Amino acid sequence: MRSRTEVQLLQRLSRGSASVWELLDAQDSSLRGFYAALEELKERGLIEIAGGKVSLTHAGMERASQLKAKFFDFKCSACDAKGYVIPPDFEEVARAFYKIAERRPLPVEDYDQGYIAPEDVLRRVAFMYERGDLAASEILVIGDDDLLSIAAALTGLPSRVIAIDIDERLVSFINSVAEEHNLNLEARSYDVQEPLSEDLARSFDVFVSDPVETIEGIKLFLSRGAASLRGEGSAAYFGLTTLEASRKKWYEIQRMLHEMGFVVTDIRRRFSVYPCEDTNFFRYQDKLPIVKKLRVPCDYHWFRSALYRIEAIREPEPLITGKIKLGDKFYHDEECWATPE
Amino acid sequence: MRSRTEVQLLQRLSRGSASVWELLDAQDSSLRGFYAALEELKERGLIEIAGGKVSLTHAGMERASQLKAKFFDFKCSACDAKGYVIPPDFEEVARAFYKIAERRPLPVEDYDQGYIAPEDVLRRVAFMYERGDLAASEILVIGDDDLLSIAAALTGLPSRVIAIDIDERLVSFINSVAEEHNLNLEARSYDVQEPLSEDLARSFDVFVSDPVETIEGIKLFLSRGAASLRGEGSAAYFGLTTLEASRKKWYEIQRMLHEMGFVVTDIRRRFSVYPCEDTNFFRYQDKLPIVKKLRVPCDYHWFRSALYRIEAIREPEPLITGKIKLGDKFYHDEECWATPE
Repeated sequence: MRSRTEVQLLQRLSRGSASVWELLDAQDSSLRGFYAALEELKERGLIEIAGGKVSLTHAGMERASQLKAKFFDFKCSACDAKGYVIPPDFEEVARAFYKIAERRPLPVEDYDQGYIAPEDVLRRVAFMYERGDLAASEILVIGDDDLLSIAAALTGLPSRVIAIDIDERLVSFINSVAEEHNLNLEARSYDVQEPLSEDLARSFDVFVSDPVETIEGIKLFLSRGAASLRGEGSAAYFGLTTLEASRKKWYEIQRMLHEMGFVVTDIRRRFSVYPCEDTNFFRYQDKLPIVKKLRVPCDYHWFRSALYRIEAIREPEPLITGKIKLGDKFYHDEECWATPE
Repeated sequence: MRSRTEVQLLQRLSRGSASVWELLDAQDSSLRGFYAALEELKERGLIEIAGGKVSLTHAGMERASQLKAKFFDFKCSACDAKGYVIPPDFEEVARAFYKIAERRPLPVEDYDQGYIAPEDVLRRVAFMYERGDLAASEILVIGDDDLLSIAAALTGLPSRVIAIDIDERLVSFINSVAEEHNLNLEARSYDVQEPLSEDLARSFDVFVSDPVETIEGIKLFLSRGAASLRGEGSAAYFGLTTLEASRKKWYEIQRMLHEMGFVVTDIRRRFSVYPCEDTNFFRYQDKLPIVKKLRVPCDYHWFRSALYRIEAIREPEPLITGKIKLGDKFYHDEECWATPE
């Protein structure tokens, strides 16, 4: 019997030792699945872990050879396998955005924040542009610790960008940047537990969000987004990891999307990286059991999410419409191993 | 009002004139949608078509500026925005495959054939490798004009590759290559109207297919594929265009996948190109009305498909199990503008 995760881990380790963080990015399972696979390989005597590095034992090398686990790196190094780069005529926007992003309010745990690398935010904007979802478009960003609303507005292409967020610091930061750079952009304070205000409902061509990765959280964020869209042909973009969202959770999410009247047009794996800097998701190190035990500092940008693009094939129907009171299950479920409790 | 296709076409044309073929690849609509959009732009006096090239009129330039339709090229040129490249240690496999592909039996219309560029077949194999779906894996290829079974077997990684195809020429070509190169590969003659033979049912970790793009065709191919898989965790890869499959058809297909117990893990747009060579899809030129009228020879590899990866979250349930008799609706529906009648 083979397991996909075992094959992926042995493929990477057949090339030499790797830190736990790098290994995480060499496989597709969730954090739970990864941890279980690593423990199992250790119990079977196939790997050893020392000084934060994982390597194959002699038995592990034999098993790797039995599974034909050789290492190849097919990823395009020019774009980190993402397919999109910043061309020279976009450099000015990029530079302005990087400079603004340096001054961002730092993530706070209360709101499950953590930001995507600025270059990957631009890639997301580039992908939206290419789809015809940026120019002359009205865009709603629901929760914007990534500052995508600023990147989109800096291009000068959308007709209107609105960012809504619960964090007052972000709202005033975005508004001050909008004023300073004279952008077609407005941020408003908003709690996703409340329905969208009437002037935002059915008013947008596109919404963008990076929802909390619980079923309840995603259902709510996507419902608010669905309520913001004009109708058939409207599109949306959101990030989803495989780390905190198992295949079964993805399956449930896809059912919800279908029910709301959305077709999935793109799922781009590894499209957005959350850099492992002290300022970002600072409690990861303390939370992953294997890392906690080993006290291994992060040496690899392992937390990535896939980009979904969806399109309404009819008037979208939000699954949740009214006000809702969320408990702890909104921010956490048994798969959330990395986001703060 | 803006339409996404109008924005995409004007974005490309704002940079200068383009052939109909290149324009096709600069937008996301179906062939029908593209043709309708082009006709509409012409009627509104925004474009002119001369010598096979489309360009903006003065009114078109004004409209482009109103829609903020500027041109940027964000695509990574190192990998043609596909994210994957052939590394040096894979060159030997690549060279062997290119050489074999040169001798392929040419596509015939009877079977809706047409082949993916060999480099993109290798990219598909690379993506399968990275997912842990190649090494020590048993793989079934259902319909193999792309010769993916040969590319996969040439890596030496899968434990078994079986290709099944209705075209006897392909079956004997694949078997002769397998013998010549001593590959772990077998091809068998198979008509998708028949259920899988018992020794192929529930026997594979992965299936790969490039189904006919009618709902009936896809349902049948994916059902036979589903019947071939071992169970939970088994995966599959298939191509789907946006050219002959509208968003509504994609929506239907995603419902079918969900019903069969599959989660979609990846949708990689533009991952596979069908080169516009005389030997491939040779009747396209005669079939697209706008091209037919203009007699424009193909100058751009515009026929591309997206790669789907799906994974069974439970024992997959094929929607069709028994023998089935297919009529014309199997090969054609009103969206099939490019594949031979």
